[in-house]
Amino acid sequence: MLEQVVGIVRKAASLMVTDGFEVEQKDGLANIVTSSDIAVQHYLCRSLSELLPGCGFICEEEDFHDPDKEFVWVIDPIDGTCNYSRGIDACCISVALKKSDEVVIGVVYSPARNEIFTAEKGRGACLNGKPIHVSDRPFEDGLMCTALGLYVKQYADISNSVIMDAYAQINDIRRFGSAAMELCFLAAGQCELYYEFRLCPWDYAAGMLILSEAGGTISGLGGRKLGIDKPELVCAANTAASHARLLEIIDRHIKSLPY
Amino acid sequence: MLEQVVGIVRKAASLMVTDGFEVEQKDGLANIVTSSDIAVQHYLCRSLSELLPGCGFICEEEDFHDPDKEFVWVIDPIDGTCNYSRGIDACCISVALKKSDEVVIGVVYSPARNEIFTAEKGRGACLNGKPIHVSDRPFEDGLMCTALGLYVKQYADISNSVIMDAYAQINDIRRFGSAAMELCFLAAGQCELYYEFRLCPWDYAAGMLILSEAGGTISGLGGRKLGIDKPELVCAANTAASHARLLEIIDRHIKSLPY
Repeated sequence: MLEQVVGIVRKAASLMVTDGFEVEQKDGLANIVTSSDIAVQHYLCRSLSELLPGCGFICEEEDFHDPDKEFVWVIDPIDGTCNYSRGIDACCISVALKKSDEVVIGVVYSPARNEIFTAEKGRGACLNGKPIHVSDRPFEDGLMCTALGLYVKQYADISNSVIMDAYAQINDIRRFGSAAMELCFLAAGQCELYYEFRLCPWDYAAGMLILSEAGGTISGLGGRKLGIDKPELVCAANTAASHARLLEIIDRHIKSLPY
Repeated sequence: MLEQVVGIVRKAASLMVTDGFEVEQKDGLANIVTSSDIAVQHYLCRSLSELLPGCGFICEEEDFHDPDKEFVWVIDPIDGTCNYSRGIDACCISVALKKSDEVVIGVVYSPARNEIFTAEKGRGACLNGKPIHVSDRPFEDGLMCTALGLYVKQYADISNSVIMDAYAQINDIRRFGSAAMELCFLAAGQCELYYEFRLCPWDYAAGMLILSEAGGTISGLGGRKLGIDKPELVCAANTAASHARLLEIIDRHIKSLPY
């Protein structure tokens, strides 16, 4: 099954053209959609429906079908659309297959970077077919990927309070502009920590499995298991110990989610 | 001359091996040097001395020779050493040639990204030999590359106050982890704004010329011309209008530099 999904995702990526696409604002300048997002999503939905008839879909570009089915595809046709629209290479297709409340397949493909991250539950994670594993760097040497809650700027201050608290205790921060790719960078051992105040399931479903299968730890607020049915705060790390330290920092600043 | 410098930089890049290098801390976990930094710098200094006998050198890895000569090479053997040490591709060799107080040649080469940015004063800027230009996106749609003053964490709060003020008015923030590359991303029209509280001349000398030659605007605090003799606050933008708006924000938070 994984190989078939990879084949479909690779074909869909041919629709991520490098120019000639149209850009439309969804909700202000920061939240955009391109004609490529739409084309990739349509292609994926059609092909994945044929692969697994009768499944449900949860897709970024407003396409929800039967999200309560046993098998549901969770799709971000282009994660990092802002990067994509500017020719910045950190953007990708993210496809996950959820069985009941577990993600069982995850594929994150960045054609511009020629990187395909894959995972099957219980079978490990790979980058371009080679097994990957999180780093063993300690918390103090951690690079944290993060963002300021882009689409809802009133969350920036609370989000930033966590970032600044963590920053004082770790190595440094990175912000590449694609949550799915950043979770994969953790999986591949290039970064160690991930925090974002509000992500949607299509942003993290595939990356969550890839990171877990690479040995990392990922959760929602208070260490709760991440659902795939609503926006979540996401906290992830290379080790359980570093995950606990990052959660502790988040806990000092955020008691409950306002969304 | 530019072609000869490019040839030397490309050869030096063969010393940026992908594994087998040694990592040493200069001043805590966040400020490291690798055996590759040292090897690249030695190679560059030797080769550039032969190319232009009698010139001075200002290099990151503690190598200053005759910085008051008419011609001075300003070298960061690896900008983004933290990224380099982790296999993150945003890292590069940065070489600038300064004549009196003007940078006249700039070369930024990222072997992992296969990107070589070049500029000669008055002759425009190129990426892999093709002319590049800044974007015309307005301030409100700007992506700002920035960092929190990594090596001196007590500057993080003042630096962050500027970032948060700007963030409220622009599209989003990026932090790729290499100042030289980020200035080149502005030059290539992928991002629009750049702010960092404290950079050293070897971090920005080449990128500054590449950005200016691509049509961008770059200055120090208060709009002052950047020197090449001491650390500086760096403010850059795609247009003069956006540069003025970013300077205005900086000016609200920072009256003078504590370093």
